[in-house]
Amino acid sequence: MSTKVGILGYGNLGRGVEEAVKRNADLELTGVYTRRDPSSISINTASVPVKSTDDLDNGKEDIDVLVICGGSATDLPEMTPKYAALYNVIDSFDTHANIPLHFDNVNAASKKAGKTALISCGWDPGMFSLNRVYSHSILPDGRDYTFWGRGVSQGHSDAIRRIDGVLDARQYTVPVPSALERVRNGENPELSTREKHTRECWVVAEDGADKDRIEQEIKTMANYFSDYDTTVNFISEQELKRDHSGLPHGGSVIYTGATGDGTNKHIIEYSLKLDSNPEFTGSVLVAYARAVARLNKEGVTGCKTVLDIAPAYLSPLSAEELRAHYL
Amino acid sequence: MSTKVGILGYGNLGRGVEEAVKRNADLELTGVYTRRDPSSISINTASVPVKSTDDLDNGKEDIDVLVICGGSATDLPEMTPKYAALYNVIDSFDTHANIPLHFDNVNAASKKAGKTALISCGWDPGMFSLNRVYSHSILPDGRDYTFWGRGVSQGHSDAIRRIDGVLDARQYTVPVPSALERVRNGENPELSTREKHTRECWVVAEDGADKDRIEQEIKTMANYFSDYDTTVNFISEQELKRDHSGLPHGGSVIYTGATGDGTNKHIIEYSLKLDSNPEFTGSVLVAYARAVARLNKEGVTGCKTVLDIAPAYLSPLSAEELRAHYL
Repeated sequence: MSTKVGILGYGNLGRGVEEAVKRNADLELTGVYTRRDPSSISINTASVPVKSTDDLDNGKEDIDVLVICGGSATDLPEMTPKYAALYNVIDSFDTHANIPLHFDNVNAASKKAGKTALISCGWDPGMFSLNRVYSHSILPDGRDYTFWGRGVSQGHSDAIRRIDGVLDARQYTVPVPSALERVRNGENPELSTREKHTRECWVVAEDGADKDRIEQEIKTMANYFSDYDTTVNFISEQELKRDHSGLPHGGSVIYTGATGDGTNKHIIEYSLKLDSNPEFTGSVLVAYARAVARLNKEGVTGCKTVLDIAPAYLSPLSAEELRAHYL
Repeated sequence: MSTKVGILGYGNLGRGVEEAVKRNADLELTGVYTRRDPSSISINTASVPVKSTDDLDNGKEDIDVLVICGGSATDLPEMTPKYAALYNVIDSFDTHANIPLHFDNVNAASKKAGKTALISCGWDPGMFSLNRVYSHSILPDGRDYTFWGRGVSQGHSDAIRRIDGVLDARQYTVPVPSALERVRNGENPELSTREKHTRECWVVAEDGADKDRIEQEIKTMANYFSDYDTTVNFISEQELKRDHSGLPHGGSVIYTGATGDGTNKHIIEYSLKLDSNPEFTGSVLVAYARAVARLNKEGVTGCKTVLDIAPAYLSPLSAEELRAHYL
């Protein structure tokens, strides 16, 4: 019996989840739910219905796990607790500071309903979080560094697009090579925000727009760019499409720790190089969706995070197969 | 209340476990057990008794988890099932092909006794196994490569020492840089044993020994060296002590997978650079010893592997603290 997956929200991430489900024979996509007009959306999986989110409200949809693909700013804080009271759910909530509050809300809803939820799944938070916890637990005396990129930040790209005179933009977050090298060498440097990453912007301006003003507005934008060394490049719409239409990303969690009398150093690095951020994130969500469905069948309810899930729960293989072939 | 740890076997690994316990405030070493004469052994932790393994036999020692530091060839297949019937135990059994049998023996003993056991813990098997399972689960269409080194292989060093005319030896396993590079580039190459690693030997020969014969015996030794490009260097005892007395090791698990229509590639790499193999392995064992003690308190019995343990169980921090600071 396959596990039935529903997708709420059909943007980049929803399509990534859809592709990931196709690659897992034990999973089956049973519905895509949207807040838009369902008839306006054509999905990549033939024979799967596109429905309105209203159809979810009675809790009767035939879904083992609902993958909620919304934004962390306003969508998920409302959606995940709401649907956690009706279905097993999983999301990729990534506003780190608000995770405890989001957890409490989702936990209360899912526990009361006898459902299982998992929040903040993906690669950061997600796989990077796992690696931070494994490393700190193994080597208590040490510190972790996280570098992101080279990759497209959609939040930063959107921020540039909101500037007057900008037609389109793509922003890459780039780790500073010398900083990466110092950390990998075990130097344990203190690094400021500016010393860790640079920001590289590719901007399509309106005809006749004041490019100097746009460049200044980008470089001085608080929270997004002012703390970084930022470069701004103006290109044509065709060039943007040709050279910057992908959504690559990645990064590294590097942990340096000591043992014995402190002279023995150990470096643990987990790194990702992703051609498609939404397709990889969708793949992580789908593996954890399998775990959520299993836990619910075992009677485990309430909200979980990736830290609460044993690795074997992510795999379609049996415990015997995993021990024989992967240990 | 601290978790009481016993160590069985006081070689390099036992000392690594001892050092790791010191760095974890919630753990306490309560005894070191040896098959040698206890009075002949002086340990690094004052006030902790050294006892005979005979003292373990009545199951009455005050231990929450016994860390069994023995060899995989003959020690652990006997010891771990024996002590799993008396205590919660953990070992680092690493003969991959025999893991299923070892698991069954330990599982039967620990289940019957209401105890919790964990086998094959360390970094390979161990942290590398975890990464193989996470990656295969997230990206079902892909393959993993494991590279070891640069690091000291104690088994290969021992094999050289058994050759007539050899006083001492140290063997390094070295990954082939061009092979690593091809894998990291996502080329998915087919690599033979010889193409993945080379073996580098540092040998102290007896005065007047036939060095050509020794070199030939090393290079043609089946299972250990004949499938590899091996270099043999003769040095003095003083040089061996000065330049090769450490036990560094490490390596990488590199996974390459595809999503979407197959054109989007993703590379996941987990890599370790360890100054001391036994101290790092001891640190992994100690983090999982904490998990074993917890699981037993929760009533979970029988044999587990690292694949069955949720990451949060390794940490001394609460679930709330982990969510707030590491997710």
